[in-house]
Amino acid sequence: MAGLIGTVTLNLALDVTYGVDELVVGGSHRVTDIRQRAGGKGVNVARVAATLGHQVLALGFVGGVTGELVAEELFDAGLTALLTPIRGETRRTVAIVNGQDGDATIFNEAGPSVSEDEWRAFHDRMPWARLGVLACSGSLPPGLPVDAYAELAVRARHHDVLTVIDAGGEALVAAAKAGAVVRANAAELREALGNDISVEEGARQLVVTGATAAVITDGSRGMVAASKSGAWRALPVERVAGNPTGAGDACTAVVAAAVAESPEPDWAVVLKSAVAASAAAVLTPVAGDIDLAAYQRWQPQVAVQSL
Amino acid sequence: MAGLIGTVTLNLALDVTYGVDELVVGGSHRVTDIRQRAGGKGVNVARVAATLGHQVLALGFVGGVTGELVAEELFDAGLTALLTPIRGETRRTVAIVNGQDGDATIFNEAGPSVSEDEWRAFHDRMPWARLGVLACSGSLPPGLPVDAYAELAVRARHHDVLTVIDAGGEALVAAAKAGAVVRANAAELREALGNDISVEEGARQLVVTGATAAVITDGSRGMVAASKSGAWRALPVERVAGNPTGAGDACTAVVAAAVAESPEPDWAVVLKSAVAASAAAVLTPVAGDIDLAAYQRWQPQVAVQSL
Repeated sequence: MAGLIGTVTLNLALDVTYGVDELVVGGSHRVTDIRQRAGGKGVNVARVAATLGHQVLALGFVGGVTGELVAEELFDAGLTALLTPIRGETRRTVAIVNGQDGDATIFNEAGPSVSEDEWRAFHDRMPWARLGVLACSGSLPPGLPVDAYAELAVRARHHDVLTVIDAGGEALVAAAKAGAVVRANAAELREALGNDISVEEGARQLVVTGATAAVITDGSRGMVAASKSGAWRALPVERVAGNPTGAGDACTAVVAAAVAESPEPDWAVVLKSAVAASAAAVLTPVAGDIDLAAYQRWQPQVAVQSL
Repeated sequence: MAGLIGTVTLNLALDVTYGVDELVVGGSHRVTDIRQRAGGKGVNVARVAATLGHQVLALGFVGGVTGELVAEELFDAGLTALLTPIRGETRRTVAIVNGQDGDATIFNEAGPSVSEDEWRAFHDRMPWARLGVLACSGSLPPGLPVDAYAELAVRARHHDVLTVIDAGGEALVAAAKAGAVVRANAAELREALGNDISVEEGARQLVVTGATAAVITDGSRGMVAASKSGAWRALPVERVAGNPTGAGDACTAVVAAAVAESPEPDWAVVLKSAVAASAAAVLTPVAGDIDLAAYQRWQPQVAVQSL
């Protein structure tokens, strides 16, 4: 089970999607269609990794009846989960999808507070011996320290498990210092290191700070990876139209799967898969899904340059 | 217990209110404030009647975890309830309240289907002997016949219980034929009887059709009541700014309370209380609440004319 990918979603949600004919501010709308599924960036990572054929274990907190619905949906989706119960009620997000143009308007509940005891219980049940990698993504719930991911990375290291951390700002720098493989987009990188820095420089700087590697998504300019062995830029496959939510999570899933196989993968190869998976995620309407045929078609076509 | 007011809400809901800083179509919003309570027009009627000091019994269908939340909230609000379980999941409504101007944008789930067996179970548990009046309001869930309220009115008559039915269109005419006290607003009245009819004529026509009485809210023009003894118009107290949702339900609560005391109340007196209660409901931000002090101040001031 050395390849098992643990995905951490500290602020799990029940993602509810309402279809309406036309969204009018101040209006009263009949909901024509309702969908519900487990959400949070870590769940997207788990879904994509499972779709790509990897074994995953979804980790997080659940509370109340909404937490039960999240646990049920993970089960129904075939995702193995190890969930720590909390006193608070798991949050919901509501996405209103406009029938006119398919655009989504999103409302995110902050989520329940996690106590120190609950955070300790989460650590106590981490199945370190079974994990090949630990991938941490998404916002932190109220009550947890800003370096919660870094704390997980340090503990993971004690068990010889590498961590992939998708974060921005202070949490990104803390994760780099803790030796994780760090993931961010260009905006999050600049939020952490300053507005003037280029994506290449920023990725290299995170490695100097202590990161095992840094993989930064750069929108329509592709992706950059840096490690102690070098730095690479992958160019996007082609102009893809669709829903960009979840594209970064698809990248994280590919990075986590690569790190689960080898702590020092060939980053040029990883970038090819990451770019193809992100683009294949944009093609699907729901975050966490990817178009597997498009992924397989694009993966060999991605161009990667050494920097 | 002859004065007990049974309120029927066949399409109960959990009303969720999300506060956001500013609602932007296509945007992603942090929810700054969440409130949840039992909803549906019949629940508003029950809340107002209870606030006015009457004994109420809330009747309706509940299913799933959302149904449990609705039942809990009714209990916490001090409202006695007799709820019939159904297989479907109780619906939610979501209201997004804009922090800029307090305006609400509302999303209504249709609600679960009610089967014939579940409808029969609802009838079987009606505590007719304990009821002074039965007040029916709000939309019908999928699966029930359009004359479901009229059917309740006919059964109620067999038990010497009078029914107050707030409905529009076909259901309004069916309720009148069944001998109920009917409640509607001017738009619903015209939807049922034609666009050319005046509110006075319409109210009288519903009585000719068979209604024990008709009480029609007419927006800023006040309210009209008609019975076999005559017809009356009450003028509004003063220009009231606020949330008009629930104002009609406050009127229904007053009408139901009057009918519970006497099947032939003095409609001129009832209209005074109904107008004051509706205006006092507009002053509060949440449907089902009324400003009791404003109600008591306004009630003696309402002007009523015989037509």
